[in-house]
Amino acid sequence: MPYVNIKVTDEGVTAEQKRKLIEGATRLLVDVLNKKPETTFVLIDEVSTDNWGIGYRSVKDIRQAES
Amino acid sequence: MPYVNIKVTDEGVTAEQKRKLIEGATRLLVDVLNKKPETTFVLIDEVSTDNWGIGYRSVKDIRQAES
Amino acid sequence: MPYVNIKVTDEGVTAEQKRKLIEGATRLLVDVLNKKPETTFVLIDEVSTDNWGIGYRSVKDIRQAES
Amino acid sequence: MPYVNIKVTDEGVTAEQKRKLIEGATRLLVDVLNKKPETTFVLIDEVSTDNWGIGYRSVKDIRQAES
Amino acid sequence: MPYVNIKVTDEGVTAEQKRKLIEGATRLLVDVLNKKPETTFVLIDEVSTDNWGIGYRSVKDIRQAES
Amino acid sequence: MPYVNIKVTDEGVTAEQKRKLIEGATRLLVDVLNKKPETTFVLIDEVSTDNWGIGYRSVKDIRQAES
Repeated sequence: MPYVNIKVTDEGVTAEQKRKLIEGATRLLVDVLNKKPETTFVLIDEVSTDNWGIGYRSVKDIRQAES
Repeated sequence: MPYVNIKVTDEGVTAEQKRKLIEGATRLLVDVLNKKPETTFVLIDEVSTDNWGIGYRSVKDIRQAES
Repeated sequence: MPYVNIKVTDEGVTAEQKRKLIEGATRLLVDVLNKKPETTFVLIDEVSTDNWGIGYRSVKDIRQAES
Repeated sequence: MPYVNIKVTDEGVTAEQKRKLIEGATRLLVDVLNKKPETTFVLIDEVSTDNWGIGYRSVKDIRQAES
Repeated sequence: MPYVNIKVTDEGVTAEQKRKLIEGATRLLVDVLNKKPETTFVLIDEVSTDNWGIGYRSVKDIRQAES
Repeated sequence: MPYVNIKVTDEGVTAEQKRKLIEGATRLLVDVLNKKPETTFVLIDEVSTDNWGIGYRSVKDIRQAES
C-alpha cells in the first residue's frame, strides 16, 4: 500500500524515463519493505521551471543565467 | 478547516463529476466531523496516465494492454 | 486508483469517525467516478493545532482566544 | 532543507509574482528558522478553478455567480 | 532538485530500511534523470494504520481481520 | 484560498517560530496575490530527521557525522 510521489521539473522527462521511475520506485518498496506491487502507487508530478524555486530564484531564471 | 485532496487519473473527469466530488467530500467532513463548509477546501488533481504507476507499470501502458 | 488525502486538526478524531471518513471517501469515488474500492487509498493526516494556521493565526491560538 | 508548497488557483499568477512568492517564502525560512536558501525548495501549484472547491462549490462556479 | 515523498503505514519501518529507501530513491533519480543527489530530497511519512484506508476499510481493521 | 504547506525537520521548532511562519506565509500571499487571510491555510509538517534524506543520507546521519 505504499504511495510514492516524485516531483521533478518539467524539463523533458520521456515516457521511457517515467516507466523506469515507476518500475524503480515500485521495486524499491518491494525489495526494502516487502510491499505488494499491485497496491503500490507511484505518481510523478512535472513542475514548470518558473514554479520551482531554490536559493531565492526560480529554476527558470537559474537555467537562463546558466545558458 | 479541513483540506481534502483527491488525486485521480486524467481520464475525462467532467465538470459535473468534479462538482459532485467537491460537494460529496465537503458533506462528508460536515457530517462526520461537524466541520464548517466555508473553510473546507477540496482540491482535485488530474494526473496523466503515464505519470501514474501501479504494479510496476504506468496506467497508460495498462490501459493499452487492456484495449 | 484514486488517492484521497484528508487533513484535519488533531482535535480528537475517533477511530469510528476515521472509519466513516474512509468509507465515505471511498464510496464517493466509487459512486461518482466508478472507481474500484480495492485500489482506492484514503489517508487521514491529523495536524497539531499549533501547526495549522488560518487568518494569520494558529488554530491553537484561535481556540484559546475563543475559550 | 525546507520544502514549501504553495497552492493557489490558476487565476493569472504572473512570472513576477511567482518570483516574489519564491523569494518571500525562502526569506521567511531563512529569517525564522535560519535555514540555508540553497537547499530550500519552494514549489507553486496553480490549480484550475473547477478543481478547487470551498463551501460545497467550485471556485469556478463561485466566480461565475459573482460576475 | 527532485522531491520524493514515500508514504507507508507505520508498521515497524527500521532505521536501516529508511536508509535504504533514501539511498534507493536518490539513486533512482540520479540514474534515470541524472539529478544531483545533493539537491534531491526524500521524505518518508509513516501513517498510522487506522489513518490509512483501502477497499472501504482501515488497514488496522484489515490487519485485525487477518490475525 | 491559498494553501501553503511548510515541511521542515523536527529540530526544535518553537511555538513562537510557528506563529512567525504562519503569519509570514499568510502575509506573503496577501501582499503578492491579494489573497484573503481568513481563507488562507498554512500547514507546518515537522519531519523526523531519520525520515528526511538528502545526498543519499538521512539528516540524522548527516547531523551525527557533523557532531
